Amino acid sequence: MSTLSEGLTQVLIPVAALVGIVFALIQWFMVSKVRVSNDSSNGFKDRLIEADEEEEGIDNLEVTIKCAEIQNAISVGATSFLFTEYKYLGIFMCAFAVVIFLFLGSVKGFSTKSEPCTYNQGNICKPALANALFSTVAFLLGALTSTLSGFLGMKIATYANARTTLEARKGVGKAFITAFRSGAVMGFLLAANGLLVLYASINLFRLYYGDDWEGLYESITGYGLGGSSMALFGRVGGGIYTKAADVGADLVGKVEKNIPEDDPRNPAVIADNVGDNVGDIAGMGSDLFGSYAESSCAALFVASISSFGITHDFTAMSYPLIVSSMGIVVCLITTIFATDLFEIKHVSEIEPSLKRQLLISTILMTAGIAVVSFFALPSEFTLFNFGTEKAVKNWHLFFCVAIGLWAGLVIGYTTEYYTSNAYSPVQDVADSCRTGAATNVIFGLALGYKSVIIPIFAIAIAIYVSFSMAAMYGIAVAALGMLSTIATGLAIDAYGPISDNAGGIAEMAGMSHKIRERTDALDAAGNTTAAIGKGFAIGSAALVSLALFGAYVSRAGIKTVDVLTPKVFIGLIVGAMLPYWFSAMTMKSVGSAALKMVEEVRRQFNSIPGLMEGRAKPDYANCVKISTDASLREMIPPGALVMLTPLIAGTFFGVETLAGVLAGSLVSGVQVAISASNTGGAWDNAKKYIEAGASEHAKSLGPKAILTN
Amino acid sequence: MSTLSEGLTQVLIPVAALVGIVFALIQWFMVSKVRVSNDSSNGFKDRLIEADEEEEGIDNLEVTIKCAEIQNAISVGATSFLFTEYKYLGIFMCAFAVVIFLFLGSVKGFSTKSEPCTYNQGNICKPALANALFSTVAFLLGALTSTLSGFLGMKIATYANARTTLEARKGVGKAFITAFRSGAVMGFLLAANGLLVLYASINLFRLYYGDDWEGLYESITGYGLGGSSMALFGRVGGGIYTKAADVGADLVGKVEKNIPEDDPRNPAVIADNVGDNVGDIAGMGSDLFGSYAESSCAALFVASISSFGITHDFTAMSYPLIVSSMGIVVCLITTIFATDLFEIKHVSEIEPSLKRQLLISTILMTAGIAVVSFFALPSEFTLFNFGTEKAVKNWHLFFCVAIGLWAGLVIGYTTEYYTSNAYSPVQDVADSCRTGAATNVIFGLALGYKSVIIPIFAIAIAIYVSFSMAAMYGIAVAALGMLSTIATGLAIDAYGPISDNAGGIAEMAGMSHKIRERTDALDAAGNTTAAIGKGFAIGSAALVSLALFGAYVSRAGIKTVDVLTPKVFIGLIVGAMLPYWFSAMTMKSVGSAALKMVEEVRRQFNSIPGLMEGRAKPDYANCVKISTDASLREMIPPGALVMLTPLIAGTFFGVETLAGVLAGSLVSGVQVAISASNTGGAWDNAKKYIEAGASEHAKSLGPKAILTN
Repeated sequence: MSTLSEGLTQVLIPVAALVGIVFALIQWFMVSKVRVSNDSSNGFKDRLIEADEEEEGIDNLEVTIKCAEIQNAISVGATSFLFTEYKYLGIFMCAFAVVIFLFLGSVKGFSTKSEPCTYNQGNICKPALANALFSTVAFLLGALTSTLSGFLGMKIATYANARTTLEARKGVGKAFITAFRSGAVMGFLLAANGLLVLYASINLFRLYYGDDWEGLYESITGYGLGGSSMALFGRVGGGIYTKAADVGADLVGKVEKNIPEDDPRNPAVIADNVGDNVGDIAGMGSDLFGSYAESSCAALFVASISSFGITHDFTAMSYPLIVSSMGIVVCLITTIFATDLFEIKHVSEIEPSLKRQLLISTILMTAGIAVVSFFALPSEFTLFNFGTEKAVKNWHLFFCVAIGLWAGLVIGYTTEYYTSNAYSPVQDVADSCRTGAATNVIFGLALGYKSVIIPIFAIAIAIYVSFSMAAMYGIAVAALGMLSTIATGLAIDAYGPISDNAGGIAEMAGMSHKIRERTDALDAAGNTTAAIGKGFAIGSAALVSLALFGAYVSRAGIKTVDVLTPKVFIGLIVGAMLPYWFSAMTMKSVGSAALKMVEEVRRQFNSIPGLMEGRAKPDYANCVKISTDASLREMIPPGALVMLTPLIAGTFFGVETLAGVLAGSLVSGVQVAISASNTGGAWDNAKKYIEAGASEHAKSLGPKAILTN
Repeated sequence: MSTLSEGLTQVLIPVAALVGIVFALIQWFMVSKVRVSNDSSNGFKDRLIEADEEEEGIDNLEVTIKCAEIQNAISVGATSFLFTEYKYLGIFMCAFAVVIFLFLGSVKGFSTKSEPCTYNQGNICKPALANALFSTVAFLLGALTSTLSGFLGMKIATYANARTTLEARKGVGKAFITAFRSGAVMGFLLAANGLLVLYASINLFRLYYGDDWEGLYESITGYGLGGSSMALFGRVGGGIYTKAADVGADLVGKVEKNIPEDDPRNPAVIADNVGDNVGDIAGMGSDLFGSYAESSCAALFVASISSFGITHDFTAMSYPLIVSSMGIVVCLITTIFATDLFEIKHVSEIEPSLKRQLLISTILMTAGIAVVSFFALPSEFTLFNFGTEKAVKNWHLFFCVAIGLWAGLVIGYTTEYYTSNAYSPVQDVADSCRTGAATNVIFGLALGYKSVIIPIFAIAIAIYVSFSMAAMYGIAVAALGMLSTIATGLAIDAYGPISDNAGGIAEMAGMSHKIRERTDALDAAGNTTAAIGKGFAIGSAALVSLALFGAYVSRAGIKTVDVLTPKVFIGLIVGAMLPYWFSAMTMKSVGSAALKMVEEVRRQFNSIPGLMEGRAKPDYANCVKISTDASLREMIPPGALVMLTPLIAGTFFGVETLAGVLAGSLVSGVQVAISASNTGGAWDNAKKYIEAGASEHAKSLGPKAILTN
């Protein structure tokens, strides 16, 4: 049995979660001290007088009022989009919940009789109907928690953007801390909520299930499915929204009308800033939450049918949750390094500071995992491995989690290298603009392709080590390891769109070039960290998918998935095609939504007199509506492709073909995802690099390609 | 035993090959009747007077002299590049041949003793040293035949380009026939030479091997390896050459200087036209020859260890060769439809005519396969299938070959749909240029991704059916089926670069807008057919790779390649990454070579006085040299990646990981290849579509993205 008692485990997990929530609220409180209001309160006037780098020649009151107005417009747009999205998704999720219930229930004819357990032989397990019911409840809880995490993230982001702008007047360090604290609010709320709801669900379900852990943890897997279903739609819908608005705004504003990015005369500018919040904040939050929930549930499920489940060792069973609890504590310490221990004095320190966050959290967490693995696990135990049993030692699991964690760091650093304008790859892309858009496209795509190499080796090594040591359980906890520092990961990720918005608000509020330079520097680092966040999401998704694939194969009773059989091979090749199909759908969606946006923006420029001269205000709401409608309509086909493919492949071609399809789409999807994400990040930062005037020659040309993903 | 006697087989195959060669020579003769010379012979003056659509206001003699000059420059450039390339590759191939000999020989210590056969038990087979020697000879023969095919193709192409231009003065139909006939010369020479050399080698080797068919056909597989090794370098080297020149020429000429494509003032214009010949003609020829040789050899090898080999049924053994022989006859009839039965009177008839070629050849060939399968195969026989035997009927093989053939047609038609400007996908891409390069990039990439769907399903169905019916032999003959109409496929493929060159020559010779419109129409159809050719190359390569993969797995004694084992899975994911690595290398190569080209072209425009005004001639040779040097230097790293990966994976990680790597790179590579090829074709034709003035609005903007592959 584990050294750590069950009683202590039952205290430690919720305490860690609550600590995370309290920490998030403290950060929120500190951000709220920056005052943004459109009435002239004394408080903010006093505070600004303290500032030593105060801008001259600009009426502070007027600027603050403008910021408040813009912030309000963005917040209203984002909230209204998310409410509309959640309304549709709510209906969809309820319908899907009914389908899950009927499907799971019908497998054994809605039986209400208790049955002998499948794995823990000799024991009696709860009836199929109960499992169907609890799975459905867990599914809805997962979907709800995902929604809540995304929504709260968006709220803090739209609360923090104008505050970051205002703080930028005092210096880049203050602005950085405001943006980073706000990112931390999201990171900690998501990690802590995810853990708390999962922990509470397990304990509540246990009241009914008692000693039937097989049924208990099978039901709990619904939580992961709920999280990742929301993630799919949140990511796709938000992604289409933000890119359509971004491309639409830039193409007319920057390329045709030659006005700066985020110029208030651009009718799509509010939609663009709303997009950052619903796509890169709410969508990203849902995405990482989905991976986090799936990896926890996959690990729990495998453990429940292994020796932990059979001997009812609750502490060992809860190993994934304890790792996440430790992660919250580690991230808390890490955050203090950024917000209190080091002060940013110059723009060049922003990226190193964010990079240091990754490194500190990884090093601390490695020690944390060692502690957890030693105290929470028995020194030796057996794990279930495709019908056979595998003897595993506690230090094996330490290596599994740690290799996932370090693979994440490698992916993060590689992404940083390929998407930051501090290194040669992005500089080469910027340089290639000298010869026009065509070479820029070639270099950008080549960079994305090249950036796949190291992450894939990192993932491959993580898979090999963790699988060899602890089979599919190893893969699941490796994914969890990569996500164990999710609070820090999300903090630096959410920091990006907040800075992007802050820059937008500075431009729209007519603040000086100096302020805009600072927010641009924050934003450039943000593009890199957003790419890092995507890297984590992709890497962990790859590991989680493999763990789930293993779970599927176990349950489907498949002994081997042999590439040499035609059924598997055609599954593999068709599966490898699916990410292309999916990308074609979403890109076409972005393209056509962007075209509509461009036409609307052009129409406004042509039909609203005095718009270019700044005498008339554009109709922001119409652009917000175009993005909203397009994204909600366009997220259905790709979503359907993802959800229907396994059903169709499995029903018509059997479990082996389906296994091939899953493996094929996994190995191919990772490549498409990493390359597209890094190409996009690199293009974005190449643009920033040129705009910052790093290369005088390049400046005169400007890149004409805009990130496509 | 087969209905067809061995004696008749021994007559039919060489006769078919000779018929193909004679037909090719006749076509060449007919092309040569168009006179291009820089002395004023009476012949051509007489002929031009006959023409009813003769151009007015242009001095015919002067134009012809100019055409001859330009043709000569292109021909000299292409020949010199190929000679330089062949010099390096010759050394490399000889070194590689030594490695093969040493490697194969050392397996059994250069044994000179005869040994008991592996499969045909009870018989005595030739010594290992003999197998090593003959394999090496076959390897060199394959490399030589590939070189010869590519070289002859380039020769006829550079012979035909100016003739097509001159014929364009008489009308689009005449020009089309000239270009198409020239393409047919290449197609028939390649198909017939490939068949003849293979046939002759088998018979010559047989003089030594006698009844040891196991050793005989194992040695013959060297022929396939030689062909595909040349294909790798020919394709990569030629590809880098043509794209560097193309991008370099267009970026400065069209985008910066605003002069038309192929304007003689552009210093890179000759390099661009040379590139079409060395990349899209010689490179493509080597590529398809490689697939053709590999699929024939893979099928022969599997057959030799099956019942055909054991019962020494030479006719049945030669089934792959007889299918190819029938293919030559079918293509001959098909060609007559294009050159003699239908006359092109209007530019809109060009594409339908080429499409009809595909359809006619496929329908006729289906009947041809039925005949061959009925007469050349026993009604029932057994095939080797991973250590077990599989009973197969002759009509099973008919279906295997036919499904490969028809899958090729589906791929061809899909490619045509996605890359021809007659349909909405390319028109949408052209339309997206209204909003700039960014939406153009998004739409182009999305089109490529989408175009993968149908070909993958076609390939998957072909694999499933042929594998189910005749195991790996089925896959090999399905690939052969797809390539059985290679003569027609290559004819319509080679037609493309010839037309492209013809357009270039028309522009450079200062011919009228009317002529240029005709050659542009020919060229637009050519872009589509080039993409179709690539589609065939990719589809057949996928099938061939699978067949070779099966052969590898058989020989390595692997019983299953189980995705669920970590060794295979990491192979799979790393393998799926390799096409990205490879693409990153080649794209980076093209990008940096194009940058150099751009700088040289700019330098010439800036430093040669009177160049823009047409008073001075640019230094074409320097641009040719830049492309030549860059492509020869840059083809080494990607080539090394492809050749070393299997060695490294196999040596350090074992046969299972290698199997995973092969499967992963196969399923991922197909997607990357199809999408990149179609995106490129579509961009190229969207450009043509806009230049042809189809959309007045689009015309005013012009696309700024150029094909990247």
